[in-house]
Amino acid sequence: MLHNLLSKLDKTISINRVSAHCDVPCGIYDPMVAQIAALTVIREVDQLTELHNKDELSLNDKANFSRMVTVKEEHCNKVKEEIRIIWGDFIKQPQLDAYPQLHTLVHEIMLAGSVAKQHVDKDAALKLLDKVNEFAEIFWAIKGVKTYRANAPYAPAAEVVYPDLKA
Amino acid sequence: MLHNLLSKLDKTISINRVSAHCDVPCGIYDPMVAQIAALTVIREVDQLTELHNKDELSLNDKANFSRMVTVKEEHCNKVKEEIRIIWGDFIKQPQLDAYPQLHTLVHEIMLAGSVAKQHVDKDAALKLLDKVNEFAEIFWAIKGVKTYRANAPYAPAAEVVYPDLKA
Amino acid sequence: MLHNLLSKLDKTISINRVSAHCDVPCGIYDPMVAQIAALTVIREVDQLTELHNKDELSLNDKANFSRMVTVKEEHCNKVKEEIRIIWGDFIKQPQLDAYPQLHTLVHEIMLAGSVAKQHVDKDAALKLLDKVNEFAEIFWAIKGVKTYRANAPYAPAAEVVYPDLKA
Amino acid sequence: MLHNLLSKLDKTISINRVSAHCDVPCGIYDPMVAQIAALTVIREVDQLTELHNKDELSLNDKANFSRMVTVKEEHCNKVKEEIRIIWGDFIKQPQLDAYPQLHTLVHEIMLAGSVAKQHVDKDAALKLLDKVNEFAEIFWAIKGVKTYRANAPYAPAAEVVYPDLKA
Amino acid sequence: MLHNLLSKLDKTISINRVSAHCDVPCGIYDPMVAQIAALTVIREVDQLTELHNKDELSLNDKANFSRMVTVKEEHCNKVKEEIRIIWGDFIKQPQLDAYPQLHTLVHEIMLAGSVAKQHVDKDAALKLLDKVNEFAEIFWAIKGVKTYRANAPYAPAAEVVYPDLKA
Amino acid sequence: MLHNLLSKLDKTISINRVSAHCDVPCGIYDPMVAQIAALTVIREVDQLTELHNKDELSLNDKANFSRMVTVKEEHCNKVKEEIRIIWGDFIKQPQLDAYPQLHTLVHEIMLAGSVAKQHVDKDAALKLLDKVNEFAEIFWAIKGVKTYRANAPYAPAAEVVYPDLKA
Repeated sequence: MLHNLLSKLDKTISINRVSAHCDVPCGIYDPMVAQIAALTVIREVDQLTELHNKDELSLNDKANFSRMVTVKEEHCNKVKEEIRIIWGDFIKQPQLDAYPQLHTLVHEIMLAGSVAKQHVDKDAALKLLDKVNEFAEIFWAIKGVKTYRANAPYAPAAEVVYPDLKA
Repeated sequence: MLHNLLSKLDKTISINRVSAHCDVPCGIYDPMVAQIAALTVIREVDQLTELHNKDELSLNDKANFSRMVTVKEEHCNKVKEEIRIIWGDFIKQPQLDAYPQLHTLVHEIMLAGSVAKQHVDKDAALKLLDKVNEFAEIFWAIKGVKTYRANAPYAPAAEVVYPDLKA
Repeated sequence: MLHNLLSKLDKTISINRVSAHCDVPCGIYDPMVAQIAALTVIREVDQLTELHNKDELSLNDKANFSRMVTVKEEHCNKVKEEIRIIWGDFIKQPQLDAYPQLHTLVHEIMLAGSVAKQHVDKDAALKLLDKVNEFAEIFWAIKGVKTYRANAPYAPAAEVVYPDLKA
Repeated sequence: MLHNLLSKLDKTISINRVSAHCDVPCGIYDPMVAQIAALTVIREVDQLTELHNKDELSLNDKANFSRMVTVKEEHCNKVKEEIRIIWGDFIKQPQLDAYPQLHTLVHEIMLAGSVAKQHVDKDAALKLLDKVNEFAEIFWAIKGVKTYRANAPYAPAAEVVYPDLKA
Repeated sequence: MLHNLLSKLDKTISINRVSAHCDVPCGIYDPMVAQIAALTVIREVDQLTELHNKDELSLNDKANFSRMVTVKEEHCNKVKEEIRIIWGDFIKQPQLDAYPQLHTLVHEIMLAGSVAKQHVDKDAALKLLDKVNEFAEIFWAIKGVKTYRANAPYAPAAEVVYPDLKA
Repeated sequence: MLHNLLSKLDKTISINRVSAHCDVPCGIYDPMVAQIAALTVIREVDQLTELHNKDELSLNDKANFSRMVTVKEEHCNKVKEEIRIIWGDFIKQPQLDAYPQLHTLVHEIMLAGSVAKQHVDKDAALKLLDKVNEFAEIFWAIKGVKTYRANAPYAPAAEVVYPDLKA
């Protein structure tokens, strides 16, 4: 992946020149919000599975089952919404020329988000984060910002793409 | 366009067969909600332009200007959100095989929605509706439902794609 | 019902003349959003009942049960909210004179929406759609737009009132 | 008004007996939330008018004008929504028999809310609160709770109907 | 508690003098919205417990269990949000000088809200209301408004702090 | 600041031991969402000021002014909400013992958020980010995670505290 990104550096530079000419008000786009939401989906799957493995559910357990399903649902939607915004607002023709896989990748994130909503499934949740990380890597490459991967500093401690901003 | 749709009928039938095997809970998808939102964007552009053409704005006018901007913003977002849901939940590989333009079309709707948010511009608003209508036509063709175009029965009375369900 | 509507045509024409003089900013009102929400309520009742009839629920089934209850709840609220907006913004004295049943009908929609929220009951969900269709028929009659009834082109395929806009 | 309420006491008692048989889950209904929202509408009208009377608006003033319009809008919607919920969930046939004016009153609140949204007008805002107070008085009478009127203990200090619960 | 409030009267008066000089737009703050939300949390705990004590849950019961958990969750969040707004917007240094316990009390409300979310527990719900009442008492003392305690005029009829506004 | 954090390392370790015993479901807390929102507030102030400095505002400019005020407002609220959640859910007695300044700091964030809402003022927006960064530094110290400061890799490129996760 890193090699792949380096080989696109030239394209990236020309992209930045184009987007610098952007003449309309731009908000702030950061894939980290979607990545945190994807981590939350994994966390809820872990907790739902833990509850499911208990012999008997107390009243609190039953209520918390319902709450965790809602939290998982909301964060799947948040992933889809945040990625849609970056893709639909920030990604324009020059970025698509440099990264022709973007449409397919974003659509895969949408489908992975649906699967993660409809199942309590660790693999589905991990796949969602994986796709979002892939999107984040492209996003930061477009920005000309290096990235690294590290485990998130809280449960579920899954691997996340971070911008490498340390001087 | 109609000819184009008819020529895709065979593909559509096979698509339906595939989606009938869909084994996960499905919601209801209907592009009409996005179309009504796009009509509202046009309506607000008309009203904002009307206010802008007045010689002097009263207190009420100034407050309504701000309200109309908010309504326009919310409905641009609604268009983008509703189309993202149908594209990201309902459109899968068989539909993409039959309509390979779908990714590009949906991305164009996103960009048109951004332009319509950032401008008070009739052409931008009409283009947004136009793209959403195009999406609706494909959606109904996938469903095997005929469509027709008619002016919406309320201001701004722009042309909208409707499903043709009358026996 | 159709005969009933035709006999009100004269009143309708005078209503339109009055509302044409409306001097305040008007949004777009369309009962289709409420009708789609009512269809979704029926759909969720069908799916919840299907789950309930299974011998044993898997982890996914239990989580989806909770999700479907939430979707049903949200769409009952959406029906009530959308109808409240049309009734509370668009329906004024001339329309009430022509359709004196409107207050009672709208209140019946509210109560039917509450019953549909509190029960997983096909009849309650169908009654909600039925009342919303009745409201839509009056709405379009006020607008001077003909309507027809057809089954929705997606599950649950229940009968819906559509505006008849084909030239 | 108080005499009017007293004369309805018998009816009220029978209403309570009926609603005690209510066999479905009931939430908590309290018109105070709508009354506080109506007070906020008045407050925003006062502040918008104050800004409007300044000779020149600073950057902050212009931004705050926009913010106040939004706050006014949201609280008009909140009034309408809260009253719709009480009317549509809690008010059933026995209450309508005792207070046949309820449908008309609730519809008047909806229209008053629309007028208050579309104008920066103290009289329109006061009328909205007035109608909501009238609704609150009926609500508490249905509950068999005495009420009193007092000025709200914060700006705009308009008259509000409070339940009289002090032993 | 009342004695405690009386002893703070002098401080309160000086607070009012300070806040009267407040030069920025102020909204309306009223702890009653948080108190009603806390009452709703108690109500949902009662209803969830009632369901839990049934020998067998019907389809409706199971769906309503999920709905009640959601209502409880939303109203816990509402309590926390409403108190955060008053504390974060209205409470400034003079009020903190007069009531140095405010930070700790508000934080206790946050923690009590979390406990009430994570459990179906009458004591936890009552403790949440208790803390919110304590906050309301301080709030009204700051405003120079007397208060009294009475049972809410609807289930769960728990004790609530009301402003005493009757002349 | 770094020295200050290091000196608290012992306390932090004991905090972690305590929170490891936490027996209730925990979500994911990450101050980055609040930091991104604070950056957005700064960005909107820059853009609003730029518009304000133009000689004349076009129709688009006027509409965008209103939109930017709304974006600023929403992101001020988001900062306050996100920090309230971490403080109110995650910060308990052991963390308060280690960082007794937390209540005051969180309250300062709330007040800074209000000032940033009520003004279009670069200093106010920068102060909000500054306080949120301070909170983030304590949060990561509690987690035992090192941090570094770097300029955000997008406009307004203000300094942000990042977790230092690179191996």
